[in-house]
Order: sequence, then C-alpha cells, then structure tokens
Amino acid sequence: MNYCSHCGSARLVTKIPDGDHLPRIVCEDCQTIHYQNPKVVTGCLPQWEDKVLLCKRAIEPRYGLWTLPAGFMENKESLEQAAARETWEEAHAQVERLQLYVVMSLSRISQIYIIFRANLQDLTFSAGPETLETKLFRQDEIPWEQLAFPIIHRTLTYYFQDRLTGEFPVHLGDMMIPSSA
Amino acid sequence: MNYCSHCGSARLVTKIPDGDHLPRIVCEDCQTIHYQNPKVVTGCLPQWEDKVLLCKRAIEPRYGLWTLPAGFMENKESLEQAAARETWEEAHAQVERLQLYVVMSLSRISQIYIIFRANLQDLTFSAGPETLETKLFRQDEIPWEQLAFPIIHRTLTYYFQDRLTGEFPVHLGDMMIPSSA
Repeated sequence: MNYCSHCGSARLVTKIPDGDHLPRIVCEDCQTIHYQNPKVVTGCLPQWEDKVLLCKRAIEPRYGLWTLPAGFMENKESLEQAAARETWEEAHAQVERLQLYVVMSLSRISQIYIIFRANLQDLTFSAGPETLETKLFRQDEIPWEQLAFPIIHRTLTYYFQDRLTGEFPVHLGDMMIPSSA
Repeated sequence: MNYCSHCGSARLVTKIPDGDHLPRIVCEDCQTIHYQNPKVVTGCLPQWEDKVLLCKRAIEPRYGLWTLPAGFMENKESLEQAAARETWEEAHAQVERLQLYVVMSLSRISQIYIIFRANLQDLTFSAGPETLETKLFRQDEIPWEQLAFPIIHRTLTYYFQDRLTGEFPVHLGDMMIPSSA
C-alpha cells in the first residue's frame, strides 16, 4: 500500500491509533485507518470409495505439486459454497455431503484454512485452468513427498488415521504448533 | 475505494479480469486487481457453572445490547488467540479450555463467525473500553429480547439445547438459511 485508497494521499504512516493496541496503516491527510485482516482459504477433501481426489498445481507457488482443491473464499458466499466452488473450478468435480473437517490457523501468514470432507457425486472430474491433472489416490498411492503445502500433508494424515476408526472429529489447530498426530 | 492503493490513480473500474469469473476493482493505470475477501469474527462463550458471561455493548452498532465477547481476527494470530484476546479486551476475563463450537457464514455481509466454548479461569471480569457492563447469566436470566445480533441468539440457543444432553457438536451453517434448531 503506497497511497490512501480513500483520498489518494501518499502520506501513509504505520502507527497505533488512539484507543487501539496494534500498529495500523493510517492516512495522515484524511485519517482513514486501513485495517488488514486474515484471509480464509477453504476447500474439500473429495472422497470416492477408498480414494481421495488430488490436483496437480498448474500455478505458482508449488507448480507441479499435489494439493486438495481449495482457494480464497469470496465475498457473499458461505464456507460450503466456497469449498464446493473451488472443487468445481480446480477439479471440475461436483461434491455433496460436505462435513467440516479441518479448521487450521496459519498464523504466520495470516490465513485460516477450512477443509470439508465431501463425497464425489460421480467419477466425472478433470483439470481446471489452475490444475495440470486430477487423480484419485488410494492411501498407498498418495505422493507424500510431492504435496504442495504442509497443511495438505497434515490434513491427509488426519484423514487416513481417522479412517482406521471411522470417526472424523473436527481438527482444530495452528500450523505453527506441531501436531500431536 | 476511490484511489488505487498501489499507484494512486483514480481510474478504478469494476470488471471481470481475464481468467477470472467475478467482478473486481481494477486500476486502469497499473492494472492492480484489488481483491476483497470475507472477514473473520471470532470470540468466546465463557462458561462458569450454569452461567454464561455476556457483555453490554458500549459501541455502535447495537449500543446497549448484549453480546458475546468477539471481534475481528487480526493478522498473525491463531483463532484461539484471537478469541481469548477479544474476551480479555471486552470483558477483562481470562478463559481456558477453548472448544470450537459455532462456525457460521454470514454470507450476506461477507463475514464468518467462529465461536469457542470456554471456561472462565475465575470470577474476575469487568467492562473493557467497548463494553458498558459484563455479567453472568443463568439460562432463565438471558435477555433474549436485548441481544445484539441474530448470531448471538442462535449461539445461545444451541448452547442451552446442547446442555440438556451434555453433547456440544460443532454447529456449522449460514445465517442466511434458517436453523433447524
């Protein structure tokens, strides 16, 4: 941020406003306080029998590595709508019976990550524009060394552990703190 | 947004960028796309024996009405840190054993609301700067007609229903869709 989006001034400073406790970007001309807040990333872990659907990324970061279909939540949609939309956009797959599964803070990068378990409606899926390839993997086929992000590794680890018992509690945590899993 | 925060231009237009599917605010001079995303509100339902702690708002909107301690999540913190911080700021109360309880989309206003059940550490609490009064309420004392927001009404309704069974599942939903509760 180089200019105030309200008045166009370049006189932006970082300071703690009166009555606040955190530094904010403040315009010295119009006094607008420019708050910055965490973003929500949401998506699905799409299931089909004993397999899960992963997407090979066609974009940076982590081009060519495997991930779950997920992305930034948009204004005016619910979490479930956003997760299903991302699954459609990245994997051209339709999901149903979304179940909240992972709620993880990524505090270092100011994101929260919300993943739903979901059932594929059928075997129709294909790579969207941000995806090189979509594929169903059994547990012993998961490309653990080629996963795009630590949160994907952790989500899949939870999933295959939980499948042993058939109980899928919501997993809550902060990726900055090591999992006990 | 009147000016581009990157280059200061007033030539902002709303259009669908190439490869995108939603209208965005785009600068016609430097081509910066100004994404806007939902905000996360998080807080606690602080419990003490058979009572819950509510705060009477000292700020607009809904000045003078009762709410749970909650507010906008900040960058660089986890959900639990944010919920405990808001409880401290608004009620000067310390909480422990946070349990994820309500994950609600407020799609119409582009927010998600994440509430934790939590135990008060002790009976030390008092009004913070945004609060007129803090008070413990038994179920039959809840000021149902003077609650600040529908989400607070719904959260407390879930809570007292769940207390009948002692089971407190995570409640997921969209405030735009009527609850079955």
